[in-house]
Amino acid sequence: MRIDAALGDIEAVLGERLSRSRPVREQHAQSETHLHAGPPDAVAFPRSTAEVARIAEICTAHRVPMVGWGAGTSLEGHALALKGGVTIDFAQMDRILELRPEDMIVRVQPGLTREGLNAALRDTGLFFPVDPGADASLGGMAATRASGTTAVRYGTMRDNVLGLEVVLSDGRVIRTGTAAPKSSSGYDLTALMVGSEGTLGLITELTLRLHGQPEAVSAAVCAFPDMGAAVGCVIETIQHGIPMARIEFLDAASVTACNAYAQMEMPAVPHLLIEFHGTEAGVAEQAERFGEIAAEHGSADFQWATRTEDRARLWKMRHAAYRACLALRPGAEGWVTDVCVPISRLAEAVEETQADLAASPVPGPILGHVGDGNFHAILLVDPQSAEELAEAKRLSGRMAERALRLGGTVTGEHGIGFGKLGYMEAEHGAGWAVMGAIKQALDPLGLLNPGKMVASA
Amino acid sequence: MRIDAALGDIEAVLGERLSRSRPVREQHAQSETHLHAGPPDAVAFPRSTAEVARIAEICTAHRVPMVGWGAGTSLEGHALALKGGVTIDFAQMDRILELRPEDMIVRVQPGLTREGLNAALRDTGLFFPVDPGADASLGGMAATRASGTTAVRYGTMRDNVLGLEVVLSDGRVIRTGTAAPKSSSGYDLTALMVGSEGTLGLITELTLRLHGQPEAVSAAVCAFPDMGAAVGCVIETIQHGIPMARIEFLDAASVTACNAYAQMEMPAVPHLLIEFHGTEAGVAEQAERFGEIAAEHGSADFQWATRTEDRARLWKMRHAAYRACLALRPGAEGWVTDVCVPISRLAEAVEETQADLAASPVPGPILGHVGDGNFHAILLVDPQSAEELAEAKRLSGRMAERALRLGGTVTGEHGIGFGKLGYMEAEHGAGWAVMGAIKQALDPLGLLNPGKMVASA
Repeated sequence: MRIDAALGDIEAVLGERLSRSRPVREQHAQSETHLHAGPPDAVAFPRSTAEVARIAEICTAHRVPMVGWGAGTSLEGHALALKGGVTIDFAQMDRILELRPEDMIVRVQPGLTREGLNAALRDTGLFFPVDPGADASLGGMAATRASGTTAVRYGTMRDNVLGLEVVLSDGRVIRTGTAAPKSSSGYDLTALMVGSEGTLGLITELTLRLHGQPEAVSAAVCAFPDMGAAVGCVIETIQHGIPMARIEFLDAASVTACNAYAQMEMPAVPHLLIEFHGTEAGVAEQAERFGEIAAEHGSADFQWATRTEDRARLWKMRHAAYRACLALRPGAEGWVTDVCVPISRLAEAVEETQADLAASPVPGPILGHVGDGNFHAILLVDPQSAEELAEAKRLSGRMAERALRLGGTVTGEHGIGFGKLGYMEAEHGAGWAVMGAIKQALDPLGLLNPGKMVASA
Repeated sequence: MRIDAALGDIEAVLGERLSRSRPVREQHAQSETHLHAGPPDAVAFPRSTAEVARIAEICTAHRVPMVGWGAGTSLEGHALALKGGVTIDFAQMDRILELRPEDMIVRVQPGLTREGLNAALRDTGLFFPVDPGADASLGGMAATRASGTTAVRYGTMRDNVLGLEVVLSDGRVIRTGTAAPKSSSGYDLTALMVGSEGTLGLITELTLRLHGQPEAVSAAVCAFPDMGAAVGCVIETIQHGIPMARIEFLDAASVTACNAYAQMEMPAVPHLLIEFHGTEAGVAEQAERFGEIAAEHGSADFQWATRTEDRARLWKMRHAAYRACLALRPGAEGWVTDVCVPISRLAEAVEETQADLAASPVPGPILGHVGDGNFHAILLVDPQSAEELAEAKRLSGRMAERALRLGGTVTGEHGIGFGKLGYMEAEHGAGWAVMGAIKQALDPLGLLNPGKMVASA
């Protein structure tokens, strides 16, 4: 690595938009969770694909690592520069390039956030549904294959990215996908890049699918006697083809946290939060049928939020759940972990995890996206206590192993980063070496986000 | 290539299930379309993944090409053994391995056909929606990223394959995906294999998403004054969020063909065939709203098929459209080509193609999946006439170039095979070399379906 020569060359391209200042570098060494790393050697703020391509050429010439950075909201340390080098922050590439309402697609730069996009779409009748909670950048959401509360209806980033522009490690620029809704032409490079966490290329443009803003929306919160009853209700709802737009659960500990943080008064038992999108008549029919199924599964205390402000309060509470859980234990840091299992095994996975937590000194409220079989534990650890960090690691490891045993995956939506690299071989077996071969083919010098995703060379 | 040694070794594994007979080999040199090739050296009929893996090991040891074969219904010569070698016919691997109604997934072997699967699912309340018309094998449908009439609602094979078991060229067996509904763990090898046309691996098992059989179904056929009006109606329907389960169009020439072949009496103008899936009330509401939009776009002669037998007749007619078109010109062979464009450019793409056809001696009815921007021309050529074959090639080439000019893809669902290899560079630019690098990484000896998908070594 000839870092000084590389930074000199990049500075000649970007001028003051290459920062070597300590505060800026430290900012890019922070993570939302327990994961931390040393700072990168510098942070670049490109404004165009051509600048990103030039940075990649320079970094390749000088063998310097490149790490993409969106909004810094990833949870497994994805964007931390483990081997130093240049962090490429897309904050200044945040424009909408083209909106095509007839095709229901939009072309954007990677630094635009999902809330920024939806604010710009407000008057068009369209919206972008993928909702991971945080106001993440769209490039980062693609890179981590993000999903969230609406995936049960609208899919994840895998389903909503139609095409990409990507800068490869050597500075070549490729375009994947087209503006047509589907294609059977060639290997699916779009899907390969989505979820590759910046290890195969730097996303410089995205073509995204949009959806019509629903005419009518209806939401509810309902209590269940236990996890099994709540999951049974959701399975039956899916089997009946009732299209839920969101279906979230909170365990009793999460409910307690939300009550305290958001001044709610839910009973301390498992809850489902549900939302329907459709026509007035359609939503009313769906709500009625769901209500019947929920009652059969023992739901009580069923509260419909028909007014917009009540619904907004409900989802604000859900999105604040992470902060609410942190507030349960002042001074604690969140070790946030997620796994995903077949929905038939979800109750079992949650209950076994709760039993682990009950026997542990580390508290961990559980919540998640029940329609996808995806749940999170927010382990509240004292960051000064090596014992607690080790305990959190043990609990998280047991969750991951349990998910694999039940036929699932070690992460439904948070991704691998460096927090979960240790589970890749267990999950993918011989497929992990195939991933390594693909990495080697596309980034032979290993300069893109090194230390992540594949076995180190 | 040491073919005799390889066949001897494979025979030791399969016995009589390795066939060198001329009729069997010739059967595997046929295509549904104008594309033909020489026969493979032998055809293997494995019964297990272990046998497929052993065949791959033997072929690799002796440098012999391997070509997968499903039901032989692909349209671009995908499964033709251009360089000889062994064709691996999955006809005897056609079992359902596991049905999980609660998770709405099924695990199957690749030789099972979609109709075979749906027949087995009939009493479960579930179905597999992807419907390319032909009774294709599910392994072949995954390998070609097939779609068809229901993609507008249920997606393509990209969306409905949750996981795969794949034998690599050297005999290693990998599993991609899990039984969980989503994952953000690692590169999306499932999506990479789907649509790779047997050039990266041989699919030996699929985990597929199932959907609930709709409670109520409603279908209609309606006439439009021209293509622009029909497409305008569909765009507005999509923008209103009215969920069409199928939305097909037939141009006037296709309507004439269907009238003659299926004893229908539609006026010789463009038609849309539409179907809604949902609850009784939901379907009735959707049909009413669609009817209003269609009327605004000049639709007349609107006929609802509410009885099951009328609907069955409608879709039988649609699926027989290829044969109906062939019957327009006795003795002709079909040169079936498909392209896909952004829906806003669909009317333009179809009308320009029709103008080309009007000026050509080769007739070519047009039909397709309007909700996806995907259409087919069935060029009816005299297979003895070199001039007509050249003309069909010219027409098909102009369609492909037009699709690219309009922001689309040279194939929406038929795939590349060897019929469209010549357009890969024009569509993918620098991305085509990336595909070549991936092929080289996974199949370094180039033994899997050689002569397809990537630039030849």
